[in-house]
Amino acid sequence: MAKVVIAYHSGFGHTDVMAQRVAEGVKAAGVEVSLRKVDVLDDALWAELAAADGIIFGTPTYMANVSAPFKAFMDASSKPWFGQLWKDKLAGGFTNSGGLSGDKLGTLQALVHFAAQHSMIWVSQGVWPSAYSNDGKGSNRLSSWLGAMAQSGNSPAGVDNPNAEDQASARLFGERFGVAVMRWSR
Amino acid sequence: MAKVVIAYHSGFGHTDVMAQRVAEGVKAAGVEVSLRKVDVLDDALWAELAAADGIIFGTPTYMANVSAPFKAFMDASSKPWFGQLWKDKLAGGFTNSGGLSGDKLGTLQALVHFAAQHSMIWVSQGVWPSAYSNDGKGSNRLSSWLGAMAQSGNSPAGVDNPNAEDQASARLFGERFGVAVMRWSR
Amino acid sequence: MAKVVIAYHSGFGHTDVMAQRVAEGVKAAGVEVSLRKVDVLDDALWAELAAADGIIFGTPTYMANVSAPFKAFMDASSKPWFGQLWKDKLAGGFTNSGGLSGDKLGTLQALVHFAAQHSMIWVSQGVWPSAYSNDGKGSNRLSSWLGAMAQSGNSPAGVDNPNAEDQASARLFGERFGVAVMRWSR
Amino acid sequence: MAKVVIAYHSGFGHTDVMAQRVAEGVKAAGVEVSLRKVDVLDDALWAELAAADGIIFGTPTYMANVSAPFKAFMDASSKPWFGQLWKDKLAGGFTNSGGLSGDKLGTLQALVHFAAQHSMIWVSQGVWPSAYSNDGKGSNRLSSWLGAMAQSGNSPAGVDNPNAEDQASARLFGERFGVAVMRWSR
Repeated sequence: MAKVVIAYHSGFGHTDVMAQRVAEGVKAAGVEVSLRKVDVLDDALWAELAAADGIIFGTPTYMANVSAPFKAFMDASSKPWFGQLWKDKLAGGFTNSGGLSGDKLGTLQALVHFAAQHSMIWVSQGVWPSAYSNDGKGSNRLSSWLGAMAQSGNSPAGVDNPNAEDQASARLFGERFGVAVMRWSR
Repeated sequence: MAKVVIAYHSGFGHTDVMAQRVAEGVKAAGVEVSLRKVDVLDDALWAELAAADGIIFGTPTYMANVSAPFKAFMDASSKPWFGQLWKDKLAGGFTNSGGLSGDKLGTLQALVHFAAQHSMIWVSQGVWPSAYSNDGKGSNRLSSWLGAMAQSGNSPAGVDNPNAEDQASARLFGERFGVAVMRWSR
Repeated sequence: MAKVVIAYHSGFGHTDVMAQRVAEGVKAAGVEVSLRKVDVLDDALWAELAAADGIIFGTPTYMANVSAPFKAFMDASSKPWFGQLWKDKLAGGFTNSGGLSGDKLGTLQALVHFAAQHSMIWVSQGVWPSAYSNDGKGSNRLSSWLGAMAQSGNSPAGVDNPNAEDQASARLFGERFGVAVMRWSR
Repeated sequence: MAKVVIAYHSGFGHTDVMAQRVAEGVKAAGVEVSLRKVDVLDDALWAELAAADGIIFGTPTYMANVSAPFKAFMDASSKPWFGQLWKDKLAGGFTNSGGLSGDKLGTLQALVHFAAQHSMIWVSQGVWPSAYSNDGKGSNRLSSWLGAMAQSGNSPAGVDNPNAEDQASARLFGERFGVAVMRWSR
């Protein structure tokens, strides 16, 4: 059975909510999924990542970039990088911040570059933005393309924080990613 | 007297509205301003740009990047580039698209890179985002930092399209740019 | 049989040489390949792109970005974009310029964003850089990850211009892309 | 007297050499300069940064981005960011890695975005690349525009590692930055 690992960092819980939604989407596609926080970098994490068919990276946007704990994970990946252990795996990403645009694209770019250094293959968001449709579904409210974006208010994370439509788009992204992993792995 | 040229392309009029707001801001700072569409690349344009103290670049975001007519202007600037005629001038930028985030950052990055190739000095947006304040002013609604961003609906350009708060933020950016040009030129 | 289209613009012939090398690599993987210059935007081009299993984009780097003719192609793709006709196709890219680094990454980023807007899936370069190995092969001399980079001298395009090692890396990228298309399409 | 702080991280000493060269350039322009490693984030560092007329950021390129220790510094700057204490200061950047191109532009972009979030004003490299001249000076060998780039071999840092021409370009960038700070501060 195909397997996806969601490797992420969450500072205050909002990115955690996004990770849950992405995981639900992956599962809905019939793919096994594992949620792994990258705060602890132990052997089990690296073993799980090496065995995965696809890895989805998630991080809050801090200072227009991945968070420092996520960057520590990126730098620590130099060992699998040197052996190119993640080569040809599928990759994707999501991020969250307080602003509507707010340099979230800078974070997704950093994730794309990171995946490319690992010779991975990047799966884009693939959800048509509500700005260009009249279907009332409100999907991809922020018009993101590279990966899933979410915007959160300053209040604690919860059902409506990050924004509910952004959560729904994250789920759609997870499902798309799961379908792609099955196609790539068959 | 210090002088600023706003070199821009507008496809359907929305970026034009943004250019007007930026120009008002520059004027409010006591700096002369000239609005120049880059659809026509004649000697007068290049002469005006070479004489300016600062240049603000404006373009819609099409396909996550500057528009094709704006790119044609960029490529045509290889002559002043080869002579580095714009070296040490101040530069800034603005863009507009239909989505809230929608890869507008990709366009602003393209403008920053373009200005750097001309050895210019980049003035950031400098307007505190309303997402992080409770002042009710609604400035910098989209939380943009590199330059001024606007979001427009599909209806024709007008008083409220681009979004009125985005227009106000563009004016604030123009004023900031004008103040910077005066400081840099004195 | 799987099919790849290389959609590219070449200003002075150097990017054309790169396109040839990439095409040879795709063919070596047993995949049909079509070289299409995007200077002419006719119905045949759009039909071929819609029918392809994968599209590789190529452009010189002018002003830290794709060339103006390539940008015109990007903007003209708004029709297949609106129908998301290229969704789930594989995508990749290559670029060439006079400098060793010279903002070529800015161009590859623009291609990645473009592909993401079309909901495509991005295949990275995947060739280990010679800077990190002692195998004397000289592959991926410029240490590019997102796509294939080449550097050319001012002399006319030829056997050694772009740089011969960059040409060899382009061929390796084409082969990798072809293998990926076969795996994705089976 | 105008003052510049160089805030940087060096993993193995190569970026340290670059910082020395940039500092020499700033001094040559008649501007006071302070070299501060960001490994230790104490009150003295933040006080010095708040008092500076310009800040130059330096970091190795790890995984196509700033190093994790540098990212920790970026995230820790959220306090001066919230008060916008660095607003209108001049900013610049430099980076080093093992490859000729090697995603160094990604790192410089991250620094530009970071400076923009602090509402700073970005000074580009401003050194004409040797690829486009026949003056034999070998300056800006890598054709970088956004900031100073260097390439190092795997051997320990020294007189010729990073590459001597890259070191010379870093010095030229420091001098340009110093001149800009004097002009901006008078």
